[in-house]
Amino acid sequence: MIIVNGGVTAPKGFLANGIRAGIKKSGNPDLALLYSEAPAAAAGVFTTNAFKASPVRLSIANLRNKTHRAIVVNSGNANCANGRQGDADALLMAACIAKGMALKAREVLVASTGIIGHRLPLKKIASKTPELILGLSIKGGSDLAGAIMTTDTVKKEMAVKVRLGGEVVTIGGAAKGVGMIHPLMNRSGRHATMLGFVTTDVSISKAMLEKALLDAADGSFNMISVDGDMSTNDSLFIMASGLAGNKKITGSGRDYRIFLDALKGLCAALAKMLAADGEGATKLIEINVVGAGDDEDARVIARKISTSNLLKCAIFGEDPNWGRVAASAGSAGVDFDPGRTDIYIGPAKVLSGGSSMKSFDKEKVRKYIKGKEVFIKVDLKSGRGSATAWTCDFSKEYVAINSEYFT
Amino acid sequence: MIIVNGGVTAPKGFLANGIRAGIKKSGNPDLALLYSEAPAAAAGVFTTNAFKASPVRLSIANLRNKTHRAIVVNSGNANCANGRQGDADALLMAACIAKGMALKAREVLVASTGIIGHRLPLKKIASKTPELILGLSIKGGSDLAGAIMTTDTVKKEMAVKVRLGGEVVTIGGAAKGVGMIHPLMNRSGRHATMLGFVTTDVSISKAMLEKALLDAADGSFNMISVDGDMSTNDSLFIMASGLAGNKKITGSGRDYRIFLDALKGLCAALAKMLAADGEGATKLIEINVVGAGDDEDARVIARKISTSNLLKCAIFGEDPNWGRVAASAGSAGVDFDPGRTDIYIGPAKVLSGGSSMKSFDKEKVRKYIKGKEVFIKVDLKSGRGSATAWTCDFSKEYVAINSEYFT
Repeated sequence: MIIVNGGVTAPKGFLANGIRAGIKKSGNPDLALLYSEAPAAAAGVFTTNAFKASPVRLSIANLRNKTHRAIVVNSGNANCANGRQGDADALLMAACIAKGMALKAREVLVASTGIIGHRLPLKKIASKTPELILGLSIKGGSDLAGAIMTTDTVKKEMAVKVRLGGEVVTIGGAAKGVGMIHPLMNRSGRHATMLGFVTTDVSISKAMLEKALLDAADGSFNMISVDGDMSTNDSLFIMASGLAGNKKITGSGRDYRIFLDALKGLCAALAKMLAADGEGATKLIEINVVGAGDDEDARVIARKISTSNLLKCAIFGEDPNWGRVAASAGSAGVDFDPGRTDIYIGPAKVLSGGSSMKSFDKEKVRKYIKGKEVFIKVDLKSGRGSATAWTCDFSKEYVAINSEYFT
Repeated sequence: MIIVNGGVTAPKGFLANGIRAGIKKSGNPDLALLYSEAPAAAAGVFTTNAFKASPVRLSIANLRNKTHRAIVVNSGNANCANGRQGDADALLMAACIAKGMALKAREVLVASTGIIGHRLPLKKIASKTPELILGLSIKGGSDLAGAIMTTDTVKKEMAVKVRLGGEVVTIGGAAKGVGMIHPLMNRSGRHATMLGFVTTDVSISKAMLEKALLDAADGSFNMISVDGDMSTNDSLFIMASGLAGNKKITGSGRDYRIFLDALKGLCAALAKMLAADGEGATKLIEINVVGAGDDEDARVIARKISTSNLLKCAIFGEDPNWGRVAASAGSAGVDFDPGRTDIYIGPAKVLSGGSSMKSFDKEKVRKYIKGKEVFIKVDLKSGRGSATAWTCDFSKEYVAINSEYFT
């Protein structure tokens, strides 16, 4: 796998655009379109929140279609908690694109992010649809990455290439965070508003594409937290144009594994970008839990630690407060032996067999923790289960961002 | 039930003291003793954290004894993650008191709160034990409430009286918070460092006292969150001296119910004091979930909402952002119908049957939310289950307190 320039339009057959439709008060870009020139196999995973936004419910329904051609997405308004009017508006948003591009409405997927409980400004979207469609281009991947941003400070996009047989397959992606971020997504829709869009030119069956997306999401977007709050709108989509010319993937063979590894790598990289750009963040924190009874136990503990406000404040203050790591690990509801547990902060073992290390080099750790990335490892020494989660530190700026936001 | 002056020494037969032993760097009081003149029935509930501090494990073991006479408690050091040395130190702390008062060590219960992974300064404690014992008095309840404080800004103590048959029974309590607060305690020990000490002169069997404490904890201390972080040291104790002269409570009859109601009232009041004094807090938030399938569903949802950083930031910013209430309720992992759900902020219904209310008086709600207490109600309209949780708003000061604390 090699990293190449670009994002969602790097694979063959994809065009994108992102424009200003006046949905955001700021006047920043807020409407984007991703288009596949060929009928694409598509899959999605969605928030597991009981309050699912209208676009989430519509996309889940539309994904029953065999192939898809477009995803339309707006920022600035979540179209959530708007009742039947919200459902009708999500449908109309898809219909605008379908009409303008001579597609069927069910070939169009939709996503929204922004404020909850305000009606989607459909007139603005409808009036900007021609401009949105006419501006589609290979160069538009970056415009899409920009138009989906809310409190994000940087665009998140990436593309990778792998070889399958004799053919080069490209995977591209774009994502946005960066508040209400603690996703737990599955196929029928369960948790964050993170939005992710992945494209690829690989030729693959819809069933295998779905399987690969679920697997990749579980090790990436489903392992990040900014604030521990799960959104009503989290959505991760993948579209496969099939134009790479590889032998179609229909089972779990070697080609599938190569493709899956590349997809996992791309999703993990995008997920880390989200955590690093979390609201108010100054540092990325990576939490690696090993030696658990099984991977699921490790996931639960790593996810729990990633939501510890106390740990995140300590890292912001550049203090290696491993006691907060231990307390959080122990509160995950997973049974393990604290008397065997080791904890490392960066290069230093700070807890050994459940007892604090008197001898670790505090100055070395204090220096380490001043960096932009902090690595924490918890070894339960009771099995082979492992998992990695990502979060960011917790700053006064986070509180400022979220207390000075008005509904 | 009437509220009377005083705290843990209000019931007949209890003396207390709180002094400076030099455990805290600040030089503030940090060592306290609670003493029952008669052999007392006792019970406790403890953190469910897998990393349980040494004093927690010792108190769980000692509670197998039939009666107890004293609880010794220090602040400034959690005596957690200190391995066997920590266990030995907790035992020595109890032994100091036992020796000084001619008690058996197993009649003494222990509690600690403070930094994790530093050895308990036993010499300081031992040298101050005579002063601690000699200073025991009826007036010392307030000194105990002061010596257990860590980041608390005010003492939390309270006492109530009820009539059982012809006799007056008194219940008194003291508690401390106010960081790493999201307890979930049970008899064998499971989550926060909150510490609570309840005394009563009621005559009651140990079994019924234990039952009453579990029930009272579940509706009070187990329903608060300051930061969503569960401590390794949370402990809630009750001692009953039996000196009130009532007919001994040995079953769930009328007298038990009257006593339980008073105990619940006292514990809920102390729990609210903890939430209101949460680190950096400017407001108390009460979350009432009704109409759930059962009480447990309601508890899970209320507890989940009480940990929403986004909601807590919005309340700090005095913005009635009910979307964050809905998103958090929906993320609790409880199955309910969002399309039936109503949400109220103070006097105003803001969500009705899953749809935002266009017509609520925003200015009225904005005015309401400027008060010191904010009441949020979520009605799932699908059953009779209900629960109430308490939390506080989330301020920049919280981040300051927890990022400027050095290990």
